[in-house]
Amino acid sequence: MSAMSEALTQILIPVAALVGVGFALLQWFLVSKVNVSSNDSSNGYKETLIEAGEEEEGIDNDEVSIKCAEIQHAISVGATSFLFTEYKYLGIFMGVFGAIIFLFLGSVRGFSTKSEPCTYNQGNTCKPALANAFFSTIAFLLGALTSVLSGFLGMKIATYANARTTLEARKGVGKAFITAFRSGAVMGFLLAANGLLVLYASINLFKLYYGDDWEGLYESITGYGLGGSSMALFGRVGGGIYTKAADVGADLVGKVERNIPEDDPRNPAVIADNVGDNVGDIAGMGSDLFGSYAESSCAALFVASISSFGISHDFTSMSYPLIISSMGIVVCLITTLFATDLFEIKTVSEIEPSLKRQLLISTVLMTAGIAMVSFFALPSEFTLFDFGTEKEVKNWHLFFCVATGLWAGLVIGYTTEYYTSNAYSPVQDVADSCRTGAATNVIFGLALGYKSVIIPIFAIAIAIYVSFSLAAMYGIAVAALGMLSTIATGLAIDAYGPISDNAGGIAEMAGMSHKIRERTDALDAAGNTTAAIGKGFAIGSAALVSLALFGAYVSRAGIKSVDVLTPKVFIGLIVGAMLPYWFSAMTMKSVGSAALKMVEEVRRQFNTIPGLMEGRAKPDYANCVKISTDASLREMIPPGALVMFTPLIVGTFFGVETLAGVLAGSLVSGVQVAISASNTGGAWDNAKKYIEAGASEHAKSLGPKGSDCHKAAVIGDTIGDPLKDTSGPSLNILIKLMAVESLVFAPFFAAHGGLLFKLL
Amino acid sequence: MSAMSEALTQILIPVAALVGVGFALLQWFLVSKVNVSSNDSSNGYKETLIEAGEEEEGIDNDEVSIKCAEIQHAISVGATSFLFTEYKYLGIFMGVFGAIIFLFLGSVRGFSTKSEPCTYNQGNTCKPALANAFFSTIAFLLGALTSVLSGFLGMKIATYANARTTLEARKGVGKAFITAFRSGAVMGFLLAANGLLVLYASINLFKLYYGDDWEGLYESITGYGLGGSSMALFGRVGGGIYTKAADVGADLVGKVERNIPEDDPRNPAVIADNVGDNVGDIAGMGSDLFGSYAESSCAALFVASISSFGISHDFTSMSYPLIISSMGIVVCLITTLFATDLFEIKTVSEIEPSLKRQLLISTVLMTAGIAMVSFFALPSEFTLFDFGTEKEVKNWHLFFCVATGLWAGLVIGYTTEYYTSNAYSPVQDVADSCRTGAATNVIFGLALGYKSVIIPIFAIAIAIYVSFSLAAMYGIAVAALGMLSTIATGLAIDAYGPISDNAGGIAEMAGMSHKIRERTDALDAAGNTTAAIGKGFAIGSAALVSLALFGAYVSRAGIKSVDVLTPKVFIGLIVGAMLPYWFSAMTMKSVGSAALKMVEEVRRQFNTIPGLMEGRAKPDYANCVKISTDASLREMIPPGALVMFTPLIVGTFFGVETLAGVLAGSLVSGVQVAISASNTGGAWDNAKKYIEAGASEHAKSLGPKGSDCHKAAVIGDTIGDPLKDTSGPSLNILIKLMAVESLVFAPFFAAHGGLLFKLL
Repeated sequence: MSAMSEALTQILIPVAALVGVGFALLQWFLVSKVNVSSNDSSNGYKETLIEAGEEEEGIDNDEVSIKCAEIQHAISVGATSFLFTEYKYLGIFMGVFGAIIFLFLGSVRGFSTKSEPCTYNQGNTCKPALANAFFSTIAFLLGALTSVLSGFLGMKIATYANARTTLEARKGVGKAFITAFRSGAVMGFLLAANGLLVLYASINLFKLYYGDDWEGLYESITGYGLGGSSMALFGRVGGGIYTKAADVGADLVGKVERNIPEDDPRNPAVIADNVGDNVGDIAGMGSDLFGSYAESSCAALFVASISSFGISHDFTSMSYPLIISSMGIVVCLITTLFATDLFEIKTVSEIEPSLKRQLLISTVLMTAGIAMVSFFALPSEFTLFDFGTEKEVKNWHLFFCVATGLWAGLVIGYTTEYYTSNAYSPVQDVADSCRTGAATNVIFGLALGYKSVIIPIFAIAIAIYVSFSLAAMYGIAVAALGMLSTIATGLAIDAYGPISDNAGGIAEMAGMSHKIRERTDALDAAGNTTAAIGKGFAIGSAALVSLALFGAYVSRAGIKSVDVLTPKVFIGLIVGAMLPYWFSAMTMKSVGSAALKMVEEVRRQFNTIPGLMEGRAKPDYANCVKISTDASLREMIPPGALVMFTPLIVGTFFGVETLAGVLAGSLVSGVQVAISASNTGGAWDNAKKYIEAGASEHAKSLGPKGSDCHKAAVIGDTIGDPLKDTSGPSLNILIKLMAVESLVFAPFFAAHGGLLFKLL
Repeated sequence: MSAMSEALTQILIPVAALVGVGFALLQWFLVSKVNVSSNDSSNGYKETLIEAGEEEEGIDNDEVSIKCAEIQHAISVGATSFLFTEYKYLGIFMGVFGAIIFLFLGSVRGFSTKSEPCTYNQGNTCKPALANAFFSTIAFLLGALTSVLSGFLGMKIATYANARTTLEARKGVGKAFITAFRSGAVMGFLLAANGLLVLYASINLFKLYYGDDWEGLYESITGYGLGGSSMALFGRVGGGIYTKAADVGADLVGKVERNIPEDDPRNPAVIADNVGDNVGDIAGMGSDLFGSYAESSCAALFVASISSFGISHDFTSMSYPLIISSMGIVVCLITTLFATDLFEIKTVSEIEPSLKRQLLISTVLMTAGIAMVSFFALPSEFTLFDFGTEKEVKNWHLFFCVATGLWAGLVIGYTTEYYTSNAYSPVQDVADSCRTGAATNVIFGLALGYKSVIIPIFAIAIAIYVSFSLAAMYGIAVAALGMLSTIATGLAIDAYGPISDNAGGIAEMAGMSHKIRERTDALDAAGNTTAAIGKGFAIGSAALVSLALFGAYVSRAGIKSVDVLTPKVFIGLIVGAMLPYWFSAMTMKSVGSAALKMVEEVRRQFNTIPGLMEGRAKPDYANCVKISTDASLREMIPPGALVMFTPLIVGTFFGVETLAGVLAGSLVSGVQVAISASNTGGAWDNAKKYIEAGASEHAKSLGPKGSDCHKAAVIGDTIGDPLKDTSGPSLNILIKLMAVESLVFAPFFAAHGGLLFKLL
């Protein structure tokens, strides 16, 4: 048995989660000290000025502060109202899908309430299938609610922090950085701690009913992952369409036709654009990563429950995934201090290295943390379920599994940075190709995206090979958890991006000086890179998670092998590989159509509101917010339906083998499309920023703003928007969600699926 | 045994091939009757004028004719010189790779010259492995030479026909159409007949040595497929880079910067552009489809040789794939008459329907042909090898296999047409999105490409399921052959495209009137669609072929199952799915860089040659031809090396299972990338043509040439060039070539492969 007692485990996990919550609240408190609307300007900043004498002159600070508060309020109201509207739809979906889960799983044994002999823990009696149906539904609803909460809280703190970041930018780039970063940390820690706490509480509550039937208990818990991911799907797709419809629409008229700057208050779509950052990049991203976290935990727990941990009822070993996450919270807490307290950002050039350092520090510390957890929480030897056979595993094997996942994440993060940051040659080459126009910019950008897939895929492949070989599907699941163990830090640096983006927007709209805008732009450029890194993490972990879920699905469905050399599997594989394209076609087209509507509205306002261009009249921001809201809610349904119905249709009509093929195909194809789309978009965005900033001789030769090169770069940036913020990140969810849904419905498909082949 | 005697088979196959050659020569003769440079203008056209009175006035016909001859000569010389330079490199490659084949395969049994007991035909003695190594090398060289010949002959007839098509356009669109179509048919029939004849002759020659050892005989013959495809790789990639470097370079300066029309003789890159059509779209395409044809035949023959056909030495049944191809030649011959003699094209609007009708007629006729062949050439019942077991098959099962492949090809062709022809809403929507600029054009175009994947993949999946279920891997191979059985017609309508494109270029350069240019443009617009259809066929058949080769590889390597649930296979799968991206990154970047060089040269000439813009001085065409030649030869090496070395490295270091994963992964991922790339590019090209032609109210509202919409459309067209003509089509070869290479080297990998895992 493991060195740690069950009692200690039962104490440590909730304590770690609560520490995480407490730390998040502390950060929130620190951010809240920045005063947005009050007239009191003596909130201590005078004495902490980093770049003394650089505060704005000739601008009434109070007036600016009040203006910022107004804009912040408008953004916050827009975001809240969109999310509430979205949640209304999601509430209906949750109800309907919860009923489907209950009916499908209940029907496996004909809604019988009799206990059954266990499948794996032979000789024992397990709870009836109907109970599993009921508790899976409950877990699904809990996962969905936690996901919604994660996204919502993230959005709240982001809209709370954006104006504060702008105001702090007056005191210097370091102050602004810390505000944005702390706010990101609030989201990261709340989400990590929240996810852990709800999962932990659910397991303990479910245990009251299940008692010794751990098979049934952890089977039901998989519903938690499904709930988390299905909300994330709509969050990502809906939010993604919202943000990019607004962004593309605003840019096409404002920047291209009217030649006014980005985030200019005269642009009617500007508020919608800023709202979009919060509902798409923040709330969507939060739900996405929460989904990955929930799913990898569930996959690991499920496999463990049918292995020796579950059969010998070793609660501490069973909880290994949760203890890893607990350790992650502690490690990220220490890591955060390096950015906020131990080092100080003084110049723009320090921003990106500081964020990169966060990744490295958290990875190094976590490696030690994993070693500790692996030695204390696991027995030195045990067996794991390996598709029908048992595999002998040692505790240090699991250390290697988690550690490869963790370090693969770092490799993916750094590779993404290399391909999307304008500090390196790939993005500079793309910028350079703008000399010959938009077409070469697009060709080079697409090539860059394709190329950026190579190293991440090798990193994922190595992580898979090591963890798969050492500990079968359990190894994959904990490798995914390893990659996600530093999720609090990952989310902090990721959320930092949209917050800085908003801060820049607010500076522009509030009419603050060029200098402030330059500072927020610098924060934002680093934010683009970290957003790309975050997306890299999200897709990398999604690949591992969905493989782990795939393994759990195969185990639960009782499939012995997924042989490509059978027609059933092969057609699944090739059709599965096609799904990311179908899905992307839908989401890209949705953004395009919604953006066209936005363009028409923005043009209409410019043409019909007298004095708008001259700044004498105010545009109708609300109408643009409404267009984005309506479009995204309407357009998220077809791609959502594709993802939710594919496993149900394939499983029911074609059976478990074809579904296994579909999952494998969509995984190996989707991960490539997602990585290349995200990085292409990130590179175009930063190529544009590179030309705009004009920080080097080379960059100056391409600029300035408004030059032909810059115009070509803007076209690339606009094309990249839906790629990097809508279709790319949504694909993570496609591959994870289909896998977790298959896992939850596996007993039904195994019992009643494959109707079509049965008929033929 | 089959109803057809061996003697009859031995007569019918060569006769069909010779009929094909004869028909090709007849078409060539008919094309040659159009006089290009002579002063005799009484070559019968006066009496056959379709649109009487529409011949050009005010232009000296003789002078035009001489000018056309000059331009034709320049294009032909450029193309020939490029191909000869390319062949020099390919000659070296063939020598080196031939030696590798001999050494690797010879080493399987340590270069022993002793006969061995057969693997499948138990109790009999087979020829030594060294003999197989030798004959595989010979077959490889034969395949390579036939491929080169196919491409070269295609290029010759295309450069012979382009000016003739231009001159015939003076008499009306119908005349020009027939000239272009006949020329395409020359290429189609020569290639189909040639491929069949060489394969047939090789089998009979090899049989002199092998005698009763059919296992060894057909194992060696697989080298023929490898040779065909490896030449096709360099043809496609080299030719693709050549043509698009010239095209993109010419457009970027000519159309975008200097605002002169496409194919304007003042543009220094114009000859290189026209040469490119012939070396890329004609020679490359010819080699590609020849490769598919050779490979699917080899895969089918190999599987048959280890099934009951081979073991009971039933030559007629063994030759079923060749008899199908023979029937295909006859069917295509009849089909061609429908286009050239039975119906007459009178107006522009009849062109596309006429080409589409070709597809339908050949498919319907061929279905009857397959039925005949299946009943006469096959025994009513027999067994086929199915990964270690024997499968009972009836002759009508094979009929269904071939027929599903054939009809899947038609579905793919028609779907491609729907998504790339500007007669339908998808392309019109893309054109419409140009209203808001290049960015939305690109977004909509990418979405269109993604969407166009759906139906072809379902068609391929159904064909695979039916033929796989009915006749295992043999079924897949003959399904691929079914799709390729109408290759002569497919190539005719495909080659028609670049010939028309060239004809338009020559009309422009020879200073012929607007009316002539309109006619050739109409031919060309239909040609864009048929080129896309051809690419659809090429990729569809490549998918089936590479699956068949994959099956043959797995059989030959002695793998019992390719289980996704083993780490070795899974990492192969995900890395394999990445390869198309890596490969595309290389080819896209190559086109981009080569185009930039071309742009610089074209700009230099415009800036330094006095009077060039005014038409008083001639540009230096040769320099541009040289830039394209050098760039393509240099740039084709890295992607070529990626494809050629991947199977060798994976097989040697990671072993046969990982290689199986790589093949499956690259197949299911590559087919999606290829289809979407080809169709996106085709759609952008035709969206641009739609705006230029202004044939409807909607189209007029977007145009005319030079409008903002048109400029946005030109950007899309330029981006699409490398997608549709370089990276997309090259991917066919990636997936086929890796599979056939693995098949040829399978005995080596099985004996000595997997070094890395053996060490660990």
